[in-house]
Amino acid sequence: MEWWSQPVAALHVDAVALARARQQQLTKPPGSLGELEHLALQFAGWQGRVDPRIEHLHIRIFAGDHGVVAEGVSAFPQAVTVQMIRNFTSGGAAIAVLARHCNADFAVVNMGTATPTPELAKLVNVQLAPGTANFCDAAAMSEAQLSQALACGADHAPVEGHLFIGGEMGIGNTSAAAALTSALLSLPAATTVGRGTGVDDDGLALKCSAVQRALARHLTAEIGPLEILRRLGGLEIAALTGAYIACAQRGIPVLVDGYICTAAALLACRLNPGARAWMLFAHESAEPGHRHLLQALEASPLLNFGMRLGEGSGAAVAVPLLQSACRLHCEMATFAEAGVSTAEGP
Amino acid sequence: MEWWSQPVAALHVDAVALARARQQQLTKPPGSLGELEHLALQFAGWQGRVDPRIEHLHIRIFAGDHGVVAEGVSAFPQAVTVQMIRNFTSGGAAIAVLARHCNADFAVVNMGTATPTPELAKLVNVQLAPGTANFCDAAAMSEAQLSQALACGADHAPVEGHLFIGGEMGIGNTSAAAALTSALLSLPAATTVGRGTGVDDDGLALKCSAVQRALARHLTAEIGPLEILRRLGGLEIAALTGAYIACAQRGIPVLVDGYICTAAALLACRLNPGARAWMLFAHESAEPGHRHLLQALEASPLLNFGMRLGEGSGAAVAVPLLQSACRLHCEMATFAEAGVSTAEGP
Repeated sequence: MEWWSQPVAALHVDAVALARARQQQLTKPPGSLGELEHLALQFAGWQGRVDPRIEHLHIRIFAGDHGVVAEGVSAFPQAVTVQMIRNFTSGGAAIAVLARHCNADFAVVNMGTATPTPELAKLVNVQLAPGTANFCDAAAMSEAQLSQALACGADHAPVEGHLFIGGEMGIGNTSAAAALTSALLSLPAATTVGRGTGVDDDGLALKCSAVQRALARHLTAEIGPLEILRRLGGLEIAALTGAYIACAQRGIPVLVDGYICTAAALLACRLNPGARAWMLFAHESAEPGHRHLLQALEASPLLNFGMRLGEGSGAAVAVPLLQSACRLHCEMATFAEAGVSTAEGP
Repeated sequence: MEWWSQPVAALHVDAVALARARQQQLTKPPGSLGELEHLALQFAGWQGRVDPRIEHLHIRIFAGDHGVVAEGVSAFPQAVTVQMIRNFTSGGAAIAVLARHCNADFAVVNMGTATPTPELAKLVNVQLAPGTANFCDAAAMSEAQLSQALACGADHAPVEGHLFIGGEMGIGNTSAAAALTSALLSLPAATTVGRGTGVDDDGLALKCSAVQRALARHLTAEIGPLEILRRLGGLEIAALTGAYIACAQRGIPVLVDGYICTAAALLACRLNPGARAWMLFAHESAEPGHRHLLQALEASPLLNFGMRLGEGSGAAVAVPLLQSACRLHCEMATFAEAGVSTAEGP
């Protein structure tokens, strides 16, 4: 049995029952905090305590380059992957700003860039390969690379903490997410390819064509999720997949970001269905393919802000909502404590 | 000209233009932060600065009782209004928990409860009347009471600060909100009456009947928004209306909470259309009538969490989203600062 198939941590159903009983006693009409009540109960079940809290937040950004950029699928040059790694570590990228204000444990893992990435503070240079191969011509990764990338994701996931956010950076990776979504859900490229960082109509046509050709090349026979990931994915997507599974096995809930992260989340659930119980979904991306992944995962994201930046930014924006849910649950007075009358019986 | 008709503060269009120019320089694909980008520009326009921030937050809860509770429209006894005022001031209510974590300037204003409210810290006892009259039998307020309540709302709105949240408490006030919504938007009671704090089917029928009778009694001739508010509103709803208008006149944006607050927001805009430009809407309530108000105000709320607690709680939950929008706008590096390549031209 491969490590990713090992069972995930069990939910603490006793704590959920106790938390639900507490929630009925809080000074509000039952159910009136809506989704916030469900979130507090989920964290109670994850943490095994009636008074869950979200204080220790881990954010890891996995970066990697994509051979498919040779097909002209991105509005930005490939050099931006390394430039943005530097921007993450120096604090100027969106996710770096958000991580700072969340007091998160934050680091970047370079899984493999086309040009060398320098040594930087808060950066782990894994560099398994100079990016993936162009999936229009070949499998994106070798079997060894896939296996190493999955394990590397697990290695860089936290071993304890209240919440994990995985982020990603990689010029071209919405093309990989689209190919993975099409392959996993049997959807045509036209429904999974979007404008990514903002390609124009010509770029969109090139991107759609590249994904179509990749699907035609690689899906000649029935293949499983692992082989789909190897042929069509990316080093950073495989790392995210491994990280999500490892978190579920260690009992750490994950807050899934946008299109690329959700593709990794679906792969994680295909490799280990138990992983789903440890996932929350932060937002619905403006990328049109994202909603198909969310539907397949039966996920109701917290926000719909038309975001499409990646980096884990949509997830980090949603963290205070989860913290509010837990604080309300822990700190509100009960009817008895506050001397407030309950609803009149029928 | 009454005070509420005086012009609102002007938006700083120059600051919006400068902020938009800055946003184009930040290290992200243009538009990729979606709604967060629009929010940052709105705050730039409100604050007159390219680098807006949300640090000084004011929350005022207006409380008042409602004569219509005699019709059996609420699941909770009327005594809960005073009990919850105490719970706000002692820190155990939802809005008190959220205000604490937002570092808000927080206070409660008792506009008029049916039973006496004791003197408490963080409480201003205005007590204009022992609640409103039952609007099934009479106008909810006298002309003097309405005028005083509007002015009191303005008096207790902040004179400076980055954001105002008004909240409300009053057993029976979803019935008043439903009557106001029906009257302002010419909608039948069946589309504006919901379960409020959680009435059962019998309670819902009583509530719908009460609102229908009130509409039949008070809408015999065409009446304006002020008279609609006087006949069908509440002391706390009038105070919120006055507070929203005063904030717009003083140049302080308001974050509008749920059903009752949005009814006050629509009244404010009917009394002074300029007030709309100073409003943001936090969430879509589970109360079915709320969406009609939001549509009438052309408002796109930030969250849809199925909340229906009131107190300003839905607005307070949304504050960190606005803060994230401003922080990203202010603290992200530009392409030039970070040495990141921009998108390739066509």
